[in-house]
Amino acid sequence: MLLTQIDIGELNGLDMSRGFLETLSSLADADLTCDEAVKILRNRIRAGIVTYVARVDGQVVGTASLLVEDKFIHNGGRVAHIEDVATHRDFTKQGIGAALVHHATERARELGCYKAILNCAENLVPFYERLGFQRHEQEMRIDL
Amino acid sequence: MLLTQIDIGELNGLDMSRGFLETLSSLADADLTCDEAVKILRNRIRAGIVTYVARVDGQVVGTASLLVEDKFIHNGGRVAHIEDVATHRDFTKQGIGAALVHHATERARELGCYKAILNCAENLVPFYERLGFQRHEQEMRIDL
Repeated sequence: MLLTQIDIGELNGLDMSRGFLETLSSLADADLTCDEAVKILRNRIRAGIVTYVARVDGQVVGTASLLVEDKFIHNGGRVAHIEDVATHRDFTKQGIGAALVHHATERARELGCYKAILNCAENLVPFYERLGFQRHEQEMRIDL
Repeated sequence: MLLTQIDIGELNGLDMSRGFLETLSSLADADLTCDEAVKILRNRIRAGIVTYVARVDGQVVGTASLLVEDKFIHNGGRVAHIEDVATHRDFTKQGIGAALVHHATERARELGCYKAILNCAENLVPFYERLGFQRHEQEMRIDL
């Protein structure tokens, strides 16, 4: 249930001091200065990664990212990777994460992707199933 | 066990007609003309995706791709995504896939990534475990 009027758009430099890094810190440490974060944003834009934010009254309350990969397989198909979905701890349970994932998925469809994939912890599987996702392969990880 | 002398390098246009697309077809359809494949390669290079190939006598016998994502979380950490690992059907069981994954993982380490991740079918989990990977999260997928 969406209780708050939210506006979804692309992250910009001003958002860094308006709750973006605090929102991400619910996922993992995001101890960056605004300058450091802007530099990362530039690298991501250069690589074609789109960082979406949900704003309420100009403050960032959620985020999700979209990375589109052009494949050779599937006859040149495009795959959307959804990354780093997070909601600010003061705005959980209001449908913000769901709205962001839906937004990113719709954008992926417009960009011609034939599927969108993401990796999540086991406890979030039901959340993504409610959004139409299904279990697929096994994520494997190696620390470097 | 590696029975063949292989050379690993980055994909170039000449590889398209030297077994690259045939190698990928062991994963999924890759019915592309060389021109189409070169166009996709350009898009991938622009996005920073590196496509490695293993060659034997100038013929492509394996491939793996590396996509490096600059994160805001983990204090600006970098994550390596390993994609589309494939071996030509005439060259399986010779360690080519393992060599390619090792090559991509080492490159990810040099580029400062703190982890490398990939998604695979359940039957390939033991293969990746032998290379040092561990089960991590659940991949979720939605068809668009």
